[in-house]
Amino acid sequence: MTKTIDLNCDMGESFGVYQLGLDDEVIQLISSVNVACGFHGGDHNIMDHTVKMAKKYGVGVGAHPGFQDLAGFGRRNIDMEREDLMNLIIYQIGALDIFCQKHGVPLRHVKPHGNMNNMADADSEMATNIVDAVLAVRSDLPIMVKPNSQLHLVAKEKGLPFVLELFADRAYHHDFSLVSRRHEGAVITNPEEVAKRVVKMVKEGKVKTITGEELEVDGRSICVHGDTPTALQMIKAIKEELENEGVEIAPFDLIQQKSPLL
Amino acid sequence: MTKTIDLNCDMGESFGVYQLGLDDEVIQLISSVNVACGFHGGDHNIMDHTVKMAKKYGVGVGAHPGFQDLAGFGRRNIDMEREDLMNLIIYQIGALDIFCQKHGVPLRHVKPHGNMNNMADADSEMATNIVDAVLAVRSDLPIMVKPNSQLHLVAKEKGLPFVLELFADRAYHHDFSLVSRRHEGAVITNPEEVAKRVVKMVKEGKVKTITGEELEVDGRSICVHGDTPTALQMIKAIKEELENEGVEIAPFDLIQQKSPLL
Amino acid sequence: MTKTIDLNCDMGESFGVYQLGLDDEVIQLISSVNVACGFHGGDHNIMDHTVKMAKKYGVGVGAHPGFQDLAGFGRRNIDMEREDLMNLIIYQIGALDIFCQKHGVPLRHVKPHGNMNNMADADSEMATNIVDAVLAVRSDLPIMVKPNSQLHLVAKEKGLPFVLELFADRAYHHDFSLVSRRHEGAVITNPEEVAKRVVKMVKEGKVKTITGEELEVDGRSICVHGDTPTALQMIKAIKEELENEGVEIAPFDLIQQKSPLL
Amino acid sequence: MTKTIDLNCDMGESFGVYQLGLDDEVIQLISSVNVACGFHGGDHNIMDHTVKMAKKYGVGVGAHPGFQDLAGFGRRNIDMEREDLMNLIIYQIGALDIFCQKHGVPLRHVKPHGNMNNMADADSEMATNIVDAVLAVRSDLPIMVKPNSQLHLVAKEKGLPFVLELFADRAYHHDFSLVSRRHEGAVITNPEEVAKRVVKMVKEGKVKTITGEELEVDGRSICVHGDTPTALQMIKAIKEELENEGVEIAPFDLIQQKSPLL
Repeated sequence: MTKTIDLNCDMGESFGVYQLGLDDEVIQLISSVNVACGFHGGDHNIMDHTVKMAKKYGVGVGAHPGFQDLAGFGRRNIDMEREDLMNLIIYQIGALDIFCQKHGVPLRHVKPHGNMNNMADADSEMATNIVDAVLAVRSDLPIMVKPNSQLHLVAKEKGLPFVLELFADRAYHHDFSLVSRRHEGAVITNPEEVAKRVVKMVKEGKVKTITGEELEVDGRSICVHGDTPTALQMIKAIKEELENEGVEIAPFDLIQQKSPLL
Repeated sequence: MTKTIDLNCDMGESFGVYQLGLDDEVIQLISSVNVACGFHGGDHNIMDHTVKMAKKYGVGVGAHPGFQDLAGFGRRNIDMEREDLMNLIIYQIGALDIFCQKHGVPLRHVKPHGNMNNMADADSEMATNIVDAVLAVRSDLPIMVKPNSQLHLVAKEKGLPFVLELFADRAYHHDFSLVSRRHEGAVITNPEEVAKRVVKMVKEGKVKTITGEELEVDGRSICVHGDTPTALQMIKAIKEELENEGVEIAPFDLIQQKSPLL
Repeated sequence: MTKTIDLNCDMGESFGVYQLGLDDEVIQLISSVNVACGFHGGDHNIMDHTVKMAKKYGVGVGAHPGFQDLAGFGRRNIDMEREDLMNLIIYQIGALDIFCQKHGVPLRHVKPHGNMNNMADADSEMATNIVDAVLAVRSDLPIMVKPNSQLHLVAKEKGLPFVLELFADRAYHHDFSLVSRRHEGAVITNPEEVAKRVVKMVKEGKVKTITGEELEVDGRSICVHGDTPTALQMIKAIKEELENEGVEIAPFDLIQQKSPLL
Repeated sequence: MTKTIDLNCDMGESFGVYQLGLDDEVIQLISSVNVACGFHGGDHNIMDHTVKMAKKYGVGVGAHPGFQDLAGFGRRNIDMEREDLMNLIIYQIGALDIFCQKHGVPLRHVKPHGNMNNMADADSEMATNIVDAVLAVRSDLPIMVKPNSQLHLVAKEKGLPFVLELFADRAYHHDFSLVSRRHEGAVITNPEEVAKRVVKMVKEGKVKTITGEELEVDGRSICVHGDTPTALQMIKAIKEELENEGVEIAPFDLIQQKSPLL
């Protein structure tokens, strides 16, 4: 039996005349896209284009809602009231979903963007609001979560399907939290090393922490970045190594169908 | 048989802390709302609230997409490329539709806002782009149109369901175009006079032009305004007069079911 | 000698078609306005109008920069990098200043809005960034500060002129911090009681805390609100009581000229 | 005597994380920058950075106000009321001017961006509103104008200093209007040909029209583009050819001092 794994990448984050990322190349190498919905980035035109491309290349489409902060690209903490945050997320899911409908592809997942996601690592109230937003409109829509994050725990508790997501190039602590970018060794930049880490995640179900421990984890999607030529090289290295090892890259829910562990 | 008529009103045009219109009172008096979708006005919270109220009062919900121009409230001409305009409209329909899904009510119609609508009175390309946008995602979603406008003609030609809309308080030319607000007599301000005009529209199927002609028109929805206490009085006068005349106020598609002329 | 005091009020926070506050009435009752600069609220047209009115009524004009968050009206915490925050404030000061130039009135003060101000109560880094922003472009422009706040301490330390500001209707703790609105007694709503508090602040230089202590404080400006008919009544009650007590309401820097304690 | 000419380029049009143009390279090759002011593009951070660079390289700084339309990059016609447009421009001038003050450089000119500029080619009302906006706050601030445009004529009539601007790479009609980009030959792409045209403009005071006529024109600034590697090559070719011909590239008002024809 061939093992399969999902590679996901944020995409469709351009805005108007402003281009961001190497979307048209990256989308051919991965299996799921997290599509910006017009708040932290993206707009109606790039959403349309991204979903169209996803259909063309057989890539799974996810909503990637972010804070209403184009100036900060959704990468600044904003404290939002529960109802406000829920409606913000619902709105963005709806906005993307209709482009999925237009192109005849399913909306397959949701993944909060930037600091909306980061804040939900440890803040259970925030995590609850995010999960409840999805439940209010799509109770069967899987959410991508970091293992052991509050978002993971709340989704599990409330019965929202979730996809355990691992980061190809980031160092982990023993509780699965990410080592801060400010620390040395937090980001792994060597493509071969990253590719080997990914293979280990996929084939052995293990991730090595910054202190050398090996954690067991049933990661179902690997997050990669596609915003620079270097990032693109990284994806290619990962893809090649996975294929060498006989691992198929495919959207996560095909995996679910074969081995529904979630 | 009781004659019925739809009264529609723009609503949900508040934004953040900014309140606009007497929505909570007006919605109890009418039968359809055109809900702003966050571009010319409105936001995710007021959309949620407006759809919730519409459900509570049995009022039909329509999407009211506008230009991406909060500063100008969608009341300035903006020249947009075909794809851009189409995607702008599709996005807004999707954003509202998901709140309809959340509250378990159907999205019943679409009505372009402000100058997006006005530009489509005479500009067939604009009208085509609007109609094509709706057709691309909801080929059975009725669009509110002014009789004899390009939007009317294009919808008819392309097979998009449409609802002929009349204005309670505006004077008409003989070709059904509205007399410009800059001309004397363009806006009728006397509530009794307006109410009698509406009754004539509904019971006789006729509208009197500014020069005194009577035009035949099968209007299916009457547009009213609810942004001031005076406007609210106007709606009450219309409602009272209609009820005195035995006309039931109800969402337009109930009418369609009884008498599917469109 | 007649004692004088400054009454300041946030103003010009309307946006496009959205009206906020009873500016045209309130401005006739007070002596300084904090004018929104188009980020948390306000726009180029309301700025022009507000400065014009301020000139007409002899009211001092201040810049009221806020977070770039119209949707949240600047009332949500946003974590901003130092340079970003500084440039944000500088931009807004410049934008208001040119309308002062247009109308031939001086820009007399700056007062951060909403949560930008609140965050600087206790966060010395935030306070430093705000003070440095003003120093970078107008080293003689007084900043309104809450007594004992980090903003106060940093302005004093760095030599930026400051105006101690007291709140007419808010209860204080013994360290001059405001009692949270969530606690009973945090907001004083009785106009007579508020008016008497203000007279005590002005004539005795004292404010009574929520536990009954009397704190000495050399407040030079009293903050009032003008966003509701009730708020307007409050200002009228304060104004009447001050005038009964022989206190003149005048922009703070006239006071400075008579008694330059800052 | 060495002939001098000004080369101007739009700059500072990035926004948040979105990068646009090769500003850091281009600014070293030209003599004036038109700095976006945060409406059609640009933000407070890029404005600060651009003015800082302009100071470093001795480049003249101009305000480049545009429509409030980040989504359309100011390249869509928007019909604005007179007061609204005037205040929009005034606001942007003030916002840029304070960064000039911060860095201790003068604000030397203003040039409307994109369709705000294009609309003023033939629309005298639009041109009047733009000129009046500048006059209201900086009656001595030169405005860059296309020869024979309404903006040119109105500036001349009203006594606002103006700088005649020519386009290095665009074909002209005999009335100095630009040949539409949709027509063949409208944009000249060969760097050597463009460089020779520029030399002709500068040394002979002549521009050749698309039909072969030679028009006399006292152009004082040449507009170049710096948004692509190809555009950058073009600037380098122009610069080299000018220097070969003994023409000094310098901000336009130095020229004015030597030969004040405006």
